[in-house]
Amino acid sequence: MRKIVLFTAVAGLLMSGGAMAADAAAGKAKSGVCAACHGADGNSMVPMYPKLAGQHATYLEASMKAYRDGQRTGGNAAIMAPMAKGLSDADIANLAAYYSQQAHK
Amino acid sequence: MRKIVLFTAVAGLLMSGGAMAADAAAGKAKSGVCAACHGADGNSMVPMYPKLAGQHATYLEASMKAYRDGQRTGGNAAIMAPMAKGLSDADIANLAAYYSQQAHK
Repeated sequence: MRKIVLFTAVAGLLMSGGAMAADAAAGKAKSGVCAACHGADGNSMVPMYPKLAGQHATYLEASMKAYRDGQRTGGNAAIMAPMAKGLSDADIANLAAYYSQQAHK
Repeated sequence: MRKIVLFTAVAGLLMSGGAMAADAAAGKAKSGVCAACHGADGNSMVPMYPKLAGQHATYLEASMKAYRDGQRTGGNAAIMAPMAKGLSDADIANLAAYYSQQAHK
């Protein structure tokens, strides 16, 4: 019986594409460099930099990947592309989880 | 004296690049087509589409212009580029004013 439960849990995790794996605490730890523009909790005080707090995690992930993968060239891309360059998919998922869970102010 | 006051007002408006000219009501009137993805008040219920409510107007303007001007190709660009294509700078400023003034939920 234990094996079935274990197998189901692992299969569920794999099938979810690791979506459940996002770790907001790890995202917070990774967010230090982002705070300069986006604010420590994602409530940017600079009009040119977006507020990330309370934004959809899925959208945040897609945006970071678009910057990382060179699919955004205008606006803040000159700043964001190098920032995103070194991020892994897991880093991006964790950062997105962290900011999406912050209260928008 | 009246001429000086008038001149100062016009000069101020011109120097501000028309920034004061943004009209949130006109933005709301223009936002009908945006509501399908972003929600009537900018609080998108679809994780792939960003919440616009309470976002910085300056950032919203830069994003819409980046889509309009082909500087964003990844993520939602396939949807957003045609949407933004027909927007004038004034439309964009008005839409940004409208959404930035909405309460984030």
